[in-house]
Amino acid sequence: MNQQTKIRHALTVTREGDFAQWYQEVIAEAEMAEESGVRGCMVIKPWGYGIWERIQKLMDARIKAAGVDNCYFPLFIPLSYFAKEAEHVEGFAKEMAVVTHHRLIGDGKGGLVPDPEARLEEPLIVRPTSETVIGAAMARWVQSWRDLPLLTNQWANVVRWEMRTRMFLRTSEFLWQEGHTAHADRDDAMAETLRALEMYRAFAEDELAMPVIAGEKPENERFPGAVATYSIEAMMQDGKALQAGTSHYLGTGFAEAAGIQYQNREGQQALCHTTSWGVSTRLIGGVIMTHGDDDGLRVPPAIAPHQIVILPMLRDTDEDEALLAYCEDLRRALAGQQTLGEPVRVLLDKRPGKATQKRWAWVKKGVPLILEIGGRDAAGGQVSVLRRDRLWREDGKPDFAGQARDDFLARAAAELEDIQLSLHAEAKARRDANIHRGIGTLAELAAFFDDKACYPGWVELGWSRPTGAALEEVVKQLKALKLTIRNTPMDAAKPTGTCPFTGEPAVETIYVARAY
Amino acid sequence: MNQQTKIRHALTVTREGDFAQWYQEVIAEAEMAEESGVRGCMVIKPWGYGIWERIQKLMDARIKAAGVDNCYFPLFIPLSYFAKEAEHVEGFAKEMAVVTHHRLIGDGKGGLVPDPEARLEEPLIVRPTSETVIGAAMARWVQSWRDLPLLTNQWANVVRWEMRTRMFLRTSEFLWQEGHTAHADRDDAMAETLRALEMYRAFAEDELAMPVIAGEKPENERFPGAVATYSIEAMMQDGKALQAGTSHYLGTGFAEAAGIQYQNREGQQALCHTTSWGVSTRLIGGVIMTHGDDDGLRVPPAIAPHQIVILPMLRDTDEDEALLAYCEDLRRALAGQQTLGEPVRVLLDKRPGKATQKRWAWVKKGVPLILEIGGRDAAGGQVSVLRRDRLWREDGKPDFAGQARDDFLARAAAELEDIQLSLHAEAKARRDANIHRGIGTLAELAAFFDDKACYPGWVELGWSRPTGAALEEVVKQLKALKLTIRNTPMDAAKPTGTCPFTGEPAVETIYVARAY
Repeated sequence: MNQQTKIRHALTVTREGDFAQWYQEVIAEAEMAEESGVRGCMVIKPWGYGIWERIQKLMDARIKAAGVDNCYFPLFIPLSYFAKEAEHVEGFAKEMAVVTHHRLIGDGKGGLVPDPEARLEEPLIVRPTSETVIGAAMARWVQSWRDLPLLTNQWANVVRWEMRTRMFLRTSEFLWQEGHTAHADRDDAMAETLRALEMYRAFAEDELAMPVIAGEKPENERFPGAVATYSIEAMMQDGKALQAGTSHYLGTGFAEAAGIQYQNREGQQALCHTTSWGVSTRLIGGVIMTHGDDDGLRVPPAIAPHQIVILPMLRDTDEDEALLAYCEDLRRALAGQQTLGEPVRVLLDKRPGKATQKRWAWVKKGVPLILEIGGRDAAGGQVSVLRRDRLWREDGKPDFAGQARDDFLARAAAELEDIQLSLHAEAKARRDANIHRGIGTLAELAAFFDDKACYPGWVELGWSRPTGAALEEVVKQLKALKLTIRNTPMDAAKPTGTCPFTGEPAVETIYVARAY
Repeated sequence: MNQQTKIRHALTVTREGDFAQWYQEVIAEAEMAEESGVRGCMVIKPWGYGIWERIQKLMDARIKAAGVDNCYFPLFIPLSYFAKEAEHVEGFAKEMAVVTHHRLIGDGKGGLVPDPEARLEEPLIVRPTSETVIGAAMARWVQSWRDLPLLTNQWANVVRWEMRTRMFLRTSEFLWQEGHTAHADRDDAMAETLRALEMYRAFAEDELAMPVIAGEKPENERFPGAVATYSIEAMMQDGKALQAGTSHYLGTGFAEAAGIQYQNREGQQALCHTTSWGVSTRLIGGVIMTHGDDDGLRVPPAIAPHQIVILPMLRDTDEDEALLAYCEDLRRALAGQQTLGEPVRVLLDKRPGKATQKRWAWVKKGVPLILEIGGRDAAGGQVSVLRRDRLWREDGKPDFAGQARDDFLARAAAELEDIQLSLHAEAKARRDANIHRGIGTLAELAAFFDDKACYPGWVELGWSRPTGAALEEVVKQLKALKLTIRNTPMDAAKPTGTCPFTGEPAVETIYVARAY
């Protein structure tokens, strides 16, 4: 007998039924974000923003620990800053928000128009990234080898006019951090590029419980102007890849364009080697598609705004007072504990409303542990505990476990740590099971992705690292199959055999996948 | 003999010599911010941004403790959202950044232009404040009395096209938090308005060590559309007032415009009462002009990115190793202590450079405690301590105090707490000494500010609370004297006597001052 059929899931759409629709439903039902009425821009609601605040806090600690200083640079970039870039790009056309006026006036017909008298001499661009404006600052700040390395980071909003948007994954405005560093030589800059990459890998695995493959992007996927681009790539539950963070070694090209040079120890002028690296609110999309299930989101405890929610089963009777006192005592005891290196984040939810409705609201939000406490529990010193990552019993009922209060208190911190590890292990097992090997030709590759339209996963291939026209030909073939090369993992052993695209001996390993 | 003449201050301009120029020099020499090359926008450098991060962290904790949820709303607001506002304002003209295009293309002559094909159907405004877009969200989120109060806050950048800018005080782009709340009735909304005001007052006094007067702004200084506007006002060292934070009770007007209504317990539809409140990077300007001296900034320990800096007197000899070990041990011992409710923030500055140069750099940045450690100190278990708030000895030398290491460690936390209180006491004594009373007529007021052009301070007056045309007349008279009414303090006793502007009996107290 299929026990699954008994379960009545909290969402109306399943992952298997319609993954894209399921993704939207999780975001709506977990109250993470919504459309704003402004094209391509979202409103990030408290639960979504709370997760972003956790991501910011933990990532910022890693950034600061590496000696990087936070700064803030202007939202607007003069149009002329982009002219240099445009010179090198044929048919340059960039989707960017362009500010042309600095005043609104009435049009005399009850409406408003940009004041023709207030046209800017030079239009301003809303930053799509701050490379140019930070480069100009670095040119002012760096004089001598003593000023190097110069390590800066910015937390900011940026705008890229996107035609097709999807919440968290691709929005016209998004929030991110962008690290920008300048170094005396290639080795130091490359070390910083790889430090940032490793920081992102560890962050994704340890805090987001999201297994990723850190590696170098192929030439055709490099950030324009970069000498080398690295990424972390995560597998979503539909088998597609999500690029979740990038780190670029920019060589001396950007330093030359911006004039970032220094006097070296020998008294000579030299160009800096620069890097940049960033992650964004896109990570939240990655968390949803890694950990969400048919009952909503599951938030890893490290980034959960609340790790534990206590729900008193209030009945509007005199007994409520004792129940609330019991719950408050429990809340205080939990808040005094430490888990994952920080105080436990626990909420006593006393808001009006039916306890069952509130339970399902927290289930959909993905709070790691939900405690329901009734009058009998309070009287008997018990708690009823639901682990969000193991929601259902075999009989299709929520898997509440009755426990003595003191027993629960003794293991609450460890339970949260276990959930953090379990979510990671579950995602890693799924990812590893869906990386396919042994494909030797383009035809086999095409057949593989044809066959398993529903859950294709990734394919690991040997790669001869073609460049130029040869690479372009490969990219064209992949594009026809709606496939992309994700990256060359950092730690892979040298492959044997031949590259299925060129027939030449493979020199490294790549992952090929459909991607967001 | 005037001992002062012996002191060689770290800045070239004194407060008394040229306050505006002194302000710019503090910002430059403390490396807090600089012009960005983008009109009216500044680059906030690590020391300035570090102070902002401290302000954010401490204010955010207060905001969260009040049950307010952080959200994020779009940077862009459709032009039509401002149309309603414009209907009520004759000769509406607003200085705002207007986005009219979403693409740049080459102009065929090597330059770039906004693509005429990519003109937006409706221009977008870069948010000058998020009132309208948050109001629209609240209208979606509030259905029933159970949803109230709705307490939201946003940390964001906003843009107001300013013609005359001054770093931190008035910039085209600035960083702030804006709280927006919706309530069932007037009482609840007014309580929230005053809670935010009190939060700002306590924050300014306790964390910024900046004494402020919390009170209600006169009718003519209200936020457009507000029923009541409250502010905290601080006195700068040139005697001018700085409005350092505002809190508005908006009545039902904004709810009506945005459609924020709810079903009350009786089942009827009712309009919400809303509030908004904000502080910005302007606070940093207030800190500079409250605590800075002729040697640069003095940062209150609560908001200092580093509270203690340890400077080893390195000599490029073999002894450096023992010296650094001693300093690192000291750093670790300090970092393990608590002050002002948090771990002590201590930096061991091992960068290359002369110790004296580094000392003066930290003096100008205003680090509360500077420790210089030489080889002899290390050998003898000593430290040499400089309190930034009491920099000079009578003989014109920096007032370093030699102390046994263990003695210093035993009182370091208390010393920082003492500096926090001393800075507040010093500023409060100066403020209180420069509030003038006993002025009974407009002529006396004019004479007072004429007389003391250099350090006018504030004048406390009885006020008959005129409205309409009578108030306009007063404002006109004050404007001719370059004066403004700051606010009516919350806790003042009812005054006796008459209002110097109207001759009518005074019903409340006001402060009149020059202002930023």
